[in-house]
Amino acid sequence: MNALLFRDATPADIPVMIGLSHAGDARGADTPPLDPASLDDPRYRLAFDEIAADANQRLIVAELAGEIIGMLQITIVPGLPNFGMKRGMLENVHVRADQRGSGHGGAMVNWAIERCRERGCGTVQLTSNKRRHDAHRFYARLGFVGSHEGFKLKL
Amino acid sequence: MNALLFRDATPADIPVMIGLSHAGDARGADTPPLDPASLDDPRYRLAFDEIAADANQRLIVAELAGEIIGMLQITIVPGLPNFGMKRGMLENVHVRADQRGSGHGGAMVNWAIERCRERGCGTVQLTSNKRRHDAHRFYARLGFVGSHEGFKLKL
Repeated sequence: MNALLFRDATPADIPVMIGLSHAGDARGADTPPLDPASLDDPRYRLAFDEIAADANQRLIVAELAGEIIGMLQITIVPGLPNFGMKRGMLENVHVRADQRGSGHGGAMVNWAIERCRERGCGTVQLTSNKRRHDAHRFYARLGFVGSHEGFKLKL
Repeated sequence: MNALLFRDATPADIPVMIGLSHAGDARGADTPPLDPASLDDPRYRLAFDEIAADANQRLIVAELAGEIIGMLQITIVPGLPNFGMKRGMLENVHVRADQRGSGHGGAMVNWAIERCRERGCGTVQLTSNKRRHDAHRFYARLGFVGSHEGFKLKL
């Protein structure tokens, strides 16, 4: 059996990561197709560089047999309450469709939780679109509690 | 009428901020009282300094006639999808109990939304405990959509 490998993303991984997050769009079948030409947009590399330069951010890919099958971003958020408790926030958690239900997604999130623990976080948090009932079961199995409403405002 | 003033918090504001966030605990009447001696814990100042040193964090207090009546923390989170769309995250949003329903809380959150817009964010997001129905109405009035489940894992 191939082992799952976790590593920080490199600029060469940008197209695969954009593909994974596009395929994971909460609109599902209503999502417009990804325009391959859009992958050359220079804003992707600028955003990548900004994430890579920030000590409180990690953009992670999960590789299986040399192929990227998952990704996520970890943000460490310092805070004042609870004696300065840090929070770990997970964003952009995606597993390639053909690898769901394999346990690899759980291994990836558990790996990220351990990184948050190493950084001294007291809580790990994330939001998941209310349409994603399968994702909600996935996070509940990993020990997350859906105690909060997740509010978004588009600017 | 006194104008509401927004400014970055200073170390001298730590006890008032801890008091506000303690009073806003989602446990409500079940919250244990705040031990005044705990305010001297050096971890508060360490956390404050970490927030103040991070260009992607702002810890804001709202003052009315020289008194702090509200607080919140803004975190700017860089991201890859949507051509590198940044997110603004609000945490630790608290308004002093006697000032709720006055419009000051809305003014404070709208001020924070404008700061996120200035930093180029495409979305502002926050989570609110499911027990806080009044807070949910408050955020809905400000234009936020409760589209997501907010998951938390205590470490």
